[in-house]
Amino acid sequence: MTGDRRAAIAALSARFGDRVSTAAAIRDQHGHGESWHPTALPDAVFFAASEAEVADAVSICAAHRVPIVAFGAGTSVEGQVQAVQGGVSIDLSGMKRIIAVRPDDMDCTVEPGVTRVELNDFIRDQGLFFPVDPAGEATFGGMASTRASGTNAVRYGTMKDMVLSLRAVLPDGSILRTGQRAKKSSAGYDLTRLFIGAEGTLGIITELNLKLAGIPEQVSAATCSFPDMERAVRTVVEILQCGIAMSRIEVADEVQLKAINLYCKTAFPEQPMLFLEFAGNAKGVAAEIEIVRDLAQTNGGSDFRWAANEEERRALWHARYMAVASSKLLKPGARGMSTDVCVPISRLVECITATKADLDRSSLPAPLVGHVGDGNFHLYILFDPDDPREAAEAMRISEDLAARAIAMEGTCTGEHGVGLGKRKFMIEELGDPAVATMRAIKAALDPHNLMNPGKMLP
Amino acid sequence: MTGDRRAAIAALSARFGDRVSTAAAIRDQHGHGESWHPTALPDAVFFAASEAEVADAVSICAAHRVPIVAFGAGTSVEGQVQAVQGGVSIDLSGMKRIIAVRPDDMDCTVEPGVTRVELNDFIRDQGLFFPVDPAGEATFGGMASTRASGTNAVRYGTMKDMVLSLRAVLPDGSILRTGQRAKKSSAGYDLTRLFIGAEGTLGIITELNLKLAGIPEQVSAATCSFPDMERAVRTVVEILQCGIAMSRIEVADEVQLKAINLYCKTAFPEQPMLFLEFAGNAKGVAAEIEIVRDLAQTNGGSDFRWAANEEERRALWHARYMAVASSKLLKPGARGMSTDVCVPISRLVECITATKADLDRSSLPAPLVGHVGDGNFHLYILFDPDDPREAAEAMRISEDLAARAIAMEGTCTGEHGVGLGKRKFMIEELGDPAVATMRAIKAALDPHNLMNPGKMLP
Repeated sequence: MTGDRRAAIAALSARFGDRVSTAAAIRDQHGHGESWHPTALPDAVFFAASEAEVADAVSICAAHRVPIVAFGAGTSVEGQVQAVQGGVSIDLSGMKRIIAVRPDDMDCTVEPGVTRVELNDFIRDQGLFFPVDPAGEATFGGMASTRASGTNAVRYGTMKDMVLSLRAVLPDGSILRTGQRAKKSSAGYDLTRLFIGAEGTLGIITELNLKLAGIPEQVSAATCSFPDMERAVRTVVEILQCGIAMSRIEVADEVQLKAINLYCKTAFPEQPMLFLEFAGNAKGVAAEIEIVRDLAQTNGGSDFRWAANEEERRALWHARYMAVASSKLLKPGARGMSTDVCVPISRLVECITATKADLDRSSLPAPLVGHVGDGNFHLYILFDPDDPREAAEAMRISEDLAARAIAMEGTCTGEHGVGLGKRKFMIEELGDPAVATMRAIKAALDPHNLMNPGKMLP
Repeated sequence: MTGDRRAAIAALSARFGDRVSTAAAIRDQHGHGESWHPTALPDAVFFAASEAEVADAVSICAAHRVPIVAFGAGTSVEGQVQAVQGGVSIDLSGMKRIIAVRPDDMDCTVEPGVTRVELNDFIRDQGLFFPVDPAGEATFGGMASTRASGTNAVRYGTMKDMVLSLRAVLPDGSILRTGQRAKKSSAGYDLTRLFIGAEGTLGIITELNLKLAGIPEQVSAATCSFPDMERAVRTVVEILQCGIAMSRIEVADEVQLKAINLYCKTAFPEQPMLFLEFAGNAKGVAAEIEIVRDLAQTNGGSDFRWAANEEERRALWHARYMAVASSKLLKPGARGMSTDVCVPISRLVECITATKADLDRSSLPAPLVGHVGDGNFHLYILFDPDDPREAAEAMRISEDLAARAIAMEGTCTGEHGVGLGKRKFMIEELGDPAVATMRAIKAALDPHNLMNPGKMLP
């Protein structure tokens, strides 16, 4: 460790006492998320309790030119929290205050360490919920920083749509407010959206104003099986064109359903299946279910199951939520590599078909689930991490898929972010002028490259 | 005119011939939008026909360090197109190609000179529409650059939500693509949103990928009158909390209704009124209308009128659309100054009440309409532009209102943008660190301050 880093850690310890740790176990825990990317240890971890403390810690690190990595729940899947240049990991998971919930404004103010489940438990009895639902039990700071989404995005959008404004500590320790609480504003550059998806490379989010949604009167769910992916996707396109505001439209392939049946002891047909969720008033939902059932049947859908009550609805969605857990049964002891491409829905069948043809030539199982209404799907490629050939094969499948999606006017990452894993695709996807523009912004706002260095930009 | 400017105009003329004009009438037409801000003439106007031409023109101007102002339909209301430092106005209204419409993807690609009405006429028979509807017949380039919205924002959001990605010519003449066509992406900084609302200060938008919405099966409209603004707004809050996805919720005050009755020969009660639009399937809409009627009646609403057919629906909304035109009857020969504050809806009644108390002390009529579901409302302050006291009084009312909204956690501009008129409020609304961050971005991307100089930043 260089003298600068030792001095910074000493200064942090003098200021924050035992909330600054250099213990091996703590550093290790903060050196990785949930991905396959190798651990990269920070030199120290600071457990922050307030925005003022974050500002002080950033100022101390900046004075010593020590890298800073923000850490929430550690659920990132592209290596966003790895301290690839060492430095100080600032753990925000203790900043858990729900500062205000305003039912009339349908918004709330939270600290970055609050999780979606915690917030939803807190506000449920007010008839409100926060819809963005990534699979992991992520914090709002992390969800905003990776521009996360999930199964509700088809109706409610992603984090970019559900954050009204935020506060962040900038690389010089000053505190930025990106906006007030108006539902919309045309006042200047959209700094809120600049920080959403910035993966901690421009500053550390310390507070968020989140939009909330009203819990609809009626929520109903259905599943429907299809002989092939093309007919499942065609049904989705027709549903969306009808202007039906589905709250969820998910797809799973035959490999995923095999895994779900094994894990959940269910008996779904092992062929492409849509998971559908309807929300609105009771009469409207009943009419929508009829329209969707007709569209599905016209496209060769079968085994249309409608959850008649809340218990059945939960059981049906439980199967979808167990996708990752169940997948592990397909190759016991394996590690999973998540892919995250998103393409225009008109290219989705072509993208999935080419990908499955590639998988047919591979020995690695890779169940597929997708937020099909958005054109976003994930493979969970199962490989033996101790077998270099399998690891290389998983990587090849993942990278070929990213390149395929980009060639189809899509993105290598719909919701997981760039981190370490997708940096190599940035120029291919966005072109040199976009990456040069991002570099210019980064250099302007973080001239010493202290904030999560080595991430996102190639 | 300096030698640099003469040289730039000569170079542009050599390249583009008579599509470069220095005629007084053309310069005058490009020196103002639809606002009260004084005309500021460009030295020349270039009528661009393609992205490549825009890039060439920007390169020529940049080589001579000549300011560049983008011009679309000239409908901006905060002085965005005024050439306050002279230079070249690049008129994009001739770039009117609808490059692609993709019904399966529910998106399209347009040049920046296309208008909303032109696009909607083109796609209507495909069952699709573009919902963002500012009052003027603006171009998409201008709508994106001011982060415009309109009456549908409560359901469909603003331009920030409906632009998938865009292309822009940067200050050095290079061409930026901000993204591909995936419905969502987490690939790097959100350059799309950075350009939306940038008012031409970072580059010139040359192409947009727009999301489209499906035309719902049933669209119905209603109006309802209330004894006071508080009960009208309370009804709106309760509608939104029910999770009813209204497509429009507008409010007009008693002054506006007096003007509408005069202009449209209608007989609406001259008290606060909600204009409501429902969209979905027929049964769902019928159920929603019942719920909303009950909520309105519980809150003292009366004279609930439901447009039973499309003709009645159009007649009802026609009254709302005639707000500005009808207002002029209240003070013949006057000019109108539009205000544009947006506050959290919980503060809306307080904001309107304080504003109307202020108006009661003024001799200037100022009808009020609002996108009440978003907390955004406009006064149209009528004043005699030749009477300096009336002009000063209109300005005082407008500025006091902006300050009042900011003090209530709102914004001085919900959808019109900053331009010249709202620059003075930027620090008050956003704070020094935000404005410093915007300045750093501007300096990094436009180091010679050529793109629409003198706008947006204080």
